[in-house]
Amino acid sequence: MMSDTNPMRARSAGGEGVPPVTVMLADFVAKHPSCGWDQLVEREAQRTFLNWVGCAIGASRHGAVAAALAALEDLESAPQVSVLGRHERVDMSGAALLNGISSHTFDFDDTHLKTIIHPGGPVASAALALAEHSGANGRQLIDAIVLGADVACRVGNAIYPDHYDRGWHITGSTGMLGAAAACARLLRLDPHQSAMALGIAASQPIGVREQFGSMTKAFHIGAAARAGLTSALLAKHGYTASLYALEARRGLLRTYSDKCDWKEIENALGERFEIAFNSYKPFACGVVIHPCIDGCVQLRNQHSLRSDDIDRVELKVHPLVLELTGKRSPTIGLEGKFSVYHACAAGIVFGAAGESEFSDAIVARPDLVALRERVHAVVDPSIGEDSADVSIRCQDGRSLHVFVEHAVGSLQRPMSDEDLCRKFHGLVDPILGAARAESIIEHCEALPGAADVHSLTAAARG
Amino acid sequence: MMSDTNPMRARSAGGEGVPPVTVMLADFVAKHPSCGWDQLVEREAQRTFLNWVGCAIGASRHGAVAAALAALEDLESAPQVSVLGRHERVDMSGAALLNGISSHTFDFDDTHLKTIIHPGGPVASAALALAEHSGANGRQLIDAIVLGADVACRVGNAIYPDHYDRGWHITGSTGMLGAAAACARLLRLDPHQSAMALGIAASQPIGVREQFGSMTKAFHIGAAARAGLTSALLAKHGYTASLYALEARRGLLRTYSDKCDWKEIENALGERFEIAFNSYKPFACGVVIHPCIDGCVQLRNQHSLRSDDIDRVELKVHPLVLELTGKRSPTIGLEGKFSVYHACAAGIVFGAAGESEFSDAIVARPDLVALRERVHAVVDPSIGEDSADVSIRCQDGRSLHVFVEHAVGSLQRPMSDEDLCRKFHGLVDPILGAARAESIIEHCEALPGAADVHSLTAAARG
Repeated sequence: MMSDTNPMRARSAGGEGVPPVTVMLADFVAKHPSCGWDQLVEREAQRTFLNWVGCAIGASRHGAVAAALAALEDLESAPQVSVLGRHERVDMSGAALLNGISSHTFDFDDTHLKTIIHPGGPVASAALALAEHSGANGRQLIDAIVLGADVACRVGNAIYPDHYDRGWHITGSTGMLGAAAACARLLRLDPHQSAMALGIAASQPIGVREQFGSMTKAFHIGAAARAGLTSALLAKHGYTASLYALEARRGLLRTYSDKCDWKEIENALGERFEIAFNSYKPFACGVVIHPCIDGCVQLRNQHSLRSDDIDRVELKVHPLVLELTGKRSPTIGLEGKFSVYHACAAGIVFGAAGESEFSDAIVARPDLVALRERVHAVVDPSIGEDSADVSIRCQDGRSLHVFVEHAVGSLQRPMSDEDLCRKFHGLVDPILGAARAESIIEHCEALPGAADVHSLTAAARG
Repeated sequence: MMSDTNPMRARSAGGEGVPPVTVMLADFVAKHPSCGWDQLVEREAQRTFLNWVGCAIGASRHGAVAAALAALEDLESAPQVSVLGRHERVDMSGAALLNGISSHTFDFDDTHLKTIIHPGGPVASAALALAEHSGANGRQLIDAIVLGADVACRVGNAIYPDHYDRGWHITGSTGMLGAAAACARLLRLDPHQSAMALGIAASQPIGVREQFGSMTKAFHIGAAARAGLTSALLAKHGYTASLYALEARRGLLRTYSDKCDWKEIENALGERFEIAFNSYKPFACGVVIHPCIDGCVQLRNQHSLRSDDIDRVELKVHPLVLELTGKRSPTIGLEGKFSVYHACAAGIVFGAAGESEFSDAIVARPDLVALRERVHAVVDPSIGEDSADVSIRCQDGRSLHVFVEHAVGSLQRPMSDEDLCRKFHGLVDPILGAARAESIIEHCEALPGAADVHSLTAAARG
């Protein structure tokens, strides 16, 4: 089989000018050296993992997770591995599904901005489940996540935006490849078996955008994780697929996208790693109001503001802000996510706008209601989509001002490690308590040297 | 929720002229009366089921099934239900996967000719697994198969051929909807829950045509069955999806096909049943040589011919026959499937050309080798693709002739019940023995009145 799986010699079934990317990616996944990347890549992989764990624990008690767990109980899923944030145990494929669902339920996970793929969900959900069961060490888990995210995002780069514009939810429809790659690596599949794993996964793209607004949006992430994991297990046992499943005339990419820029897959493969360009949402709402919240939090922290101090907040915003999030009087949490007024009030009161700041109770709290009525916004077409001009007039007459050029969480102003830890606590403390949250953060930091992932998963269970 | 699920009142998210087909199909699946169709439909459903059971048992010892079973063993799948033809038991979703894989492995299953969907595979694989576990009776199982096949084939009618031409393996990419419909029916989901089941399934289309020639082709059928079954279980537990998942602008059909003929889904829904148009392959090879084999078998049976009687066989054939199946001297079974000479020799010697007549041993048997050398074929452009002109000159000087206008297995000349039973024995006898095969046939005939499916599955286990 060697000649088949040697990318230099592989016959490409894709025709003139189409590189044999299935075999290329498989070779890369099977052979790239452990930790064969620079410190920036390594750091971002760890941040991706921590952010993913936090999101998965944060939503672990949501109805979507409970419903999916009930379906797995109908199947009497074996208690092999952990479900983050919960006490139940399920089989590896079930954990990939459940952790994937919960990590995306709050829409608060990571984003590879060039493709809007959320790579952490499908890749880490599959990889952690397999690592926990197989006894892989922390280094192997991180390697699998870096390589898996690279496969998903490179395929995404090749087909975005046409593929997304057609209607595919790109995280689910590339994520099964990333998950398969990560699991192939963890199972130490050889290049040929890894190509089979990618090939089997290539027949299982998940998700259309019409599902946005229903639980099935988050299902896409979990189902992609599960598909990738089971594809790798099948390949391990000799199940076969086409060696050209991605690039052939009737292969996946040309079947589901009119744009197929093969160079995005092959250029600098093994040199540039897409996980280095991952970003994390600081606030649990649409990115359009992130600059406004960011400005309010900055002024609050710099001047130790409390809600009583505020006379009036004035925002100059990009036109989309009022179009998408102009809800003046939200009454429930979900409406709060579409109210720049509530979001800014929350930023001033709490210095944060995580999932708990958008609960029904917080949106209805009298001090928040009173403060949001003192928030005013006007459209200024000169303001960029990633920017906001925030002025606060205080009861004592002070006038405070900040212009946010790039919101926190963007590639220009990434979340700091402290920001990420604060976000993690905001998600995990309500579920497992602050002490346990801190212990999980420590386990994540120690992951590269950990002999296995069991103490991490034990801390992250409910 | 009633107004949402009443098709007459449902807001269609699809826009002008696009009917709310997700809710329509869900309503149909949930409410259509048991056995609410004529005797022709009922008979074809039973024939579809029998043919599917035979195909699944026939390939149950194949390496593809063994590899997939090994992957399920890694997941410690619970021993809930039967795997046809084998002694192992796995959970419902695993059985849907395995029985779906085996039923398609020989490429010998049923065909809805208008769409080239193989509806039995995804629908029956999911439905039998669920029926066995839930204790459903035979009537409920048949109802589920009729309704499930109707959903898959109606969606197929709406998008074929554009969808298939793009690269999708249409059995897997519509089959998950048929399987979800069948399982929704068996679980007695209400119309709203049934719409959720179809909606969740709509995010899981399976399979691209590049996989043809690998085990992943058959995986498409099993994975579609599994996706449909798990979608129905999720819906039962309250998991939500878009009510417009099929027809919306970013719903499944418009995402994966440029042709969306909605009338094919709504016209005569509940009056015309697509399973009535199902067909069954009489011979385990490409349809192009079926007319030749058919003619040889006819003459053999009418004149009690043995290979020694034959001096020369002369075929006039459609040009594609020699282009696709002109292999003069096949040496292994798979090559035999591409040799009109071997196939006709097998038809004369055995009166059949099932999977066992294309084994390595049969292809190498001296009497077959000698006979196939006396078979001659010439192209005659006036012969239709579904026809053949077959002449046999005997050693005793007799000249025999038959013109086959439509091959057996076509809609014009469907397989008789006797043909189907003979095919069933050809598939099942080598695995379970003739007596058990006969017992399974009896259980299938008695299915409409069976209190449960347990005696059937007990007989069909290895």
